[in-house]
Amino acid sequence: MVRNRPRAVTLRPIGVVHSPFRVREDVDPRRNSRPGGFSDVRGEIEIDPAYAAGLKDITGLSHLIVIFAFHKSGAGHLLVKPPFETRRRGVFSTRSPHRPNPIGMTVVRLLGRRRNILKISGVDMLDGTPVLDIKPYTSRDSKRGVKRGWMRGSRLNR
Amino acid sequence: MVRNRPRAVTLRPIGVVHSPFRVREDVDPRRNSRPGGFSDVRGEIEIDPAYAAGLKDITGLSHLIVIFAFHKSGAGHLLVKPPFETRRRGVFSTRSPHRPNPIGMTVVRLLGRRRNILKISGVDMLDGTPVLDIKPYTSRDSKRGVKRGWMRGSRLNR
Repeated sequence: MVRNRPRAVTLRPIGVVHSPFRVREDVDPRRNSRPGGFSDVRGEIEIDPAYAAGLKDITGLSHLIVIFAFHKSGAGHLLVKPPFETRRRGVFSTRSPHRPNPIGMTVVRLLGRRRNILKISGVDMLDGTPVLDIKPYTSRDSKRGVKRGWMRGSRLNR
Repeated sequence: MVRNRPRAVTLRPIGVVHSPFRVREDVDPRRNSRPGGFSDVRGEIEIDPAYAAGLKDITGLSHLIVIFAFHKSGAGHLLVKPPFETRRRGVFSTRSPHRPNPIGMTVVRLLGRRRNILKISGVDMLDGTPVLDIKPYTSRDSKRGVKRGWMRGSRLNR
């Protein structure tokens, strides 16, 4: 039993993503024929000037963890049908945007910084996506021997 | 300029971490003399039974991304002094818990599932940490050629 059920957490966006993708279909893996997936897609993160001081020392990091809101997703579901799949999967076993808490995580490459703007590649987020947090990606986040479970036979996330 | 400043996002915990660490000092890297850091530390994630159906298909995944609330952190700062450091660094260049949005991200190894309980290792979270989301870690999340920027000379996150 979950004791002392914890309270809700309220987050305020620290910035916004500028991306070439306007609507959800633009980031649908079934429509993405790029050989490298999203890794070459460029965009920007525009940090609210009120938070820009927190970008100090970010130059020199090669990769950033971006935590963002799935602002265009619908209601959260516990079972979802991933792209290319016919069966429904448990949502916590998928990267579906239709989650109980609509937050996403993507690792991007940092190309440069100009004032409160980060230039990035590896963008799979929609234009206008609210950014909740940015963290440095470290070697602790880079795991070897990853087993993909139900995704093993899928065309997803290769 | 950030146009159309997006609204706040309210998240509800889906579960809680059970961990050997009771207070913040227990997870301070300066006090952690384990050779593998936190990678061998075991714990559990107890999912609220209301969300347990979302765990379907999770067995077989080797690693999970856990997004959680830093429920014991103080006020968010834009400049923070990381462990082992004398200088203050931009918070988005650090993994400090004292962030504008107090959310954390850790990749854990999935050891097994029993009903609504996930047995995990790689725990660096405090006991009682509210879990906001769980996602499968895929090869897209495992980056090579990571440059650590200001952390290059640090004892952090090796």
